[in-house]
Amino acid sequence: MSRSIDRRIVKYSPTGPAAYDDVVVVEGPVEFRLAGVPIAVLMRSPGDDEALARGFVLSEAIVLGPDEFVTIEAVEPEVEDDRWEIILADGVTVDPEQFRRNTYTTSSCGVCGKASIDAVRIAARVAAAGPELSSATVMRLPGLMREVQAEFDLTGAIHAAAGFNPDGELLGVAEDVGRHNAVDKLIGELARDRWPLSDVVMMVSGRISFEIVQKAAVVGIPVICGVSAASSLAADLGAELGMTVIGFLSEHGFNVYCGADRLVS
Amino acid sequence: MSRSIDRRIVKYSPTGPAAYDDVVVVEGPVEFRLAGVPIAVLMRSPGDDEALARGFVLSEAIVLGPDEFVTIEAVEPEVEDDRWEIILADGVTVDPEQFRRNTYTTSSCGVCGKASIDAVRIAARVAAAGPELSSATVMRLPGLMREVQAEFDLTGAIHAAAGFNPDGELLGVAEDVGRHNAVDKLIGELARDRWPLSDVVMMVSGRISFEIVQKAAVVGIPVICGVSAASSLAADLGAELGMTVIGFLSEHGFNVYCGADRLVS
Repeated sequence: MSRSIDRRIVKYSPTGPAAYDDVVVVEGPVEFRLAGVPIAVLMRSPGDDEALARGFVLSEAIVLGPDEFVTIEAVEPEVEDDRWEIILADGVTVDPEQFRRNTYTTSSCGVCGKASIDAVRIAARVAAAGPELSSATVMRLPGLMREVQAEFDLTGAIHAAAGFNPDGELLGVAEDVGRHNAVDKLIGELARDRWPLSDVVMMVSGRISFEIVQKAAVVGIPVICGVSAASSLAADLGAELGMTVIGFLSEHGFNVYCGADRLVS
Repeated sequence: MSRSIDRRIVKYSPTGPAAYDDVVVVEGPVEFRLAGVPIAVLMRSPGDDEALARGFVLSEAIVLGPDEFVTIEAVEPEVEDDRWEIILADGVTVDPEQFRRNTYTTSSCGVCGKASIDAVRIAARVAAAGPELSSATVMRLPGLMREVQAEFDLTGAIHAAAGFNPDGELLGVAEDVGRHNAVDKLIGELARDRWPLSDVVMMVSGRISFEIVQKAAVVGIPVICGVSAASSLAADLGAELGMTVIGFLSEHGFNVYCGADRLVS
């Protein structure tokens, strides 16, 4: 299923209304199960569900590394492809009921539990030092991300998350109607090749929320950049965990909320 | 507690880094309880918690009208003001366990249940006809909303929802780090004086998601306008329920996804 579809709309302009074929972003629910128990229902852009599942179980600390995740299998493959059973590696056992609760309390956006702040402190795996990066490299990231934001150009309504190495080379990009889903899809892609994500500089298209810092911390991403602002709680958590949080990033400059010591020039 | 605080940051510009006192948006968790049972934990901008609670129980169809909601009382008033017991009117009984589940499946952002699509069809109270509005009035709304977005000007990182009557007169405005919270706070404010919200034109600062259409439908708001795009599922739901959904609204024009018949000139 595509992440965008054509749709007939009425467009009002100074010359009046006219019928118009627009490109509209698609959203739809996906359900993930563990041992048959639904642990999360996310509203997401269709596609990349395996990367989304891998990133979700990693960033929510449901599994401890990509080796523990094998694949996803459709619950009813003959009728639909939006309910998936998550297949873990042999010998990995988790209590789905525990994560059903955990998913509720730390889910993607706007729903958060107080317990999650303590939980992320325990699960965080950000290295105390490194990587180092230059301010010139940082200011190049928004342009590099826009070059690979295919769906945004079509619909103007989809979030992106991109991963770079400290030299500004693109490692991966993901797009989704939900910004936390974009982060999870990116994490799921990057975790195929590396773990933890200790050398990844992550760039997001919107603001930096507490939950984005939380997800990055759990998978070891030390540097988060955003086009918009960071919240106070996001900056507080990043500072406590030794992360670098950069907001209002453009080609002309940026604001560093915490971790400015990683910027070496 | 304020919705924004001063924070010392490092600002990089073409002239290099410099310490800078920035204004950062505050986010923090709030917990709502019914009969002692936590039914929702939301990451929100502090303040306006009573309006948020009123709007939340209305837009999530936990109560059937504003008369059923009385107030909120702090669970531990001596130590904190972010855990609240929702006090309902005498004789109104709800099963909190039911809404604990309901909250999980239809919560504010990114987490949604398939069952919610059927549920919103049942709960929707949008009138089949009216109100009528002119395209000139619609194009004035973004400017009117920006005039009252106090926190956005400070932080550049907060969502807004505003309510207008069909003549473009401002009825209320709410701001929050979470866009669904801004909608609930607005609904909670407007529901003090009117119910259902059948003559309200709602304007939101971001994109129009399925969940925003869902919340509007449940409280009877027939017209939703957004600065950004509507998703396919949002437009589908609006069309099915006879609502008017308008995206990419600026002073120069807008796109109508469904319900163009309410535009009379």
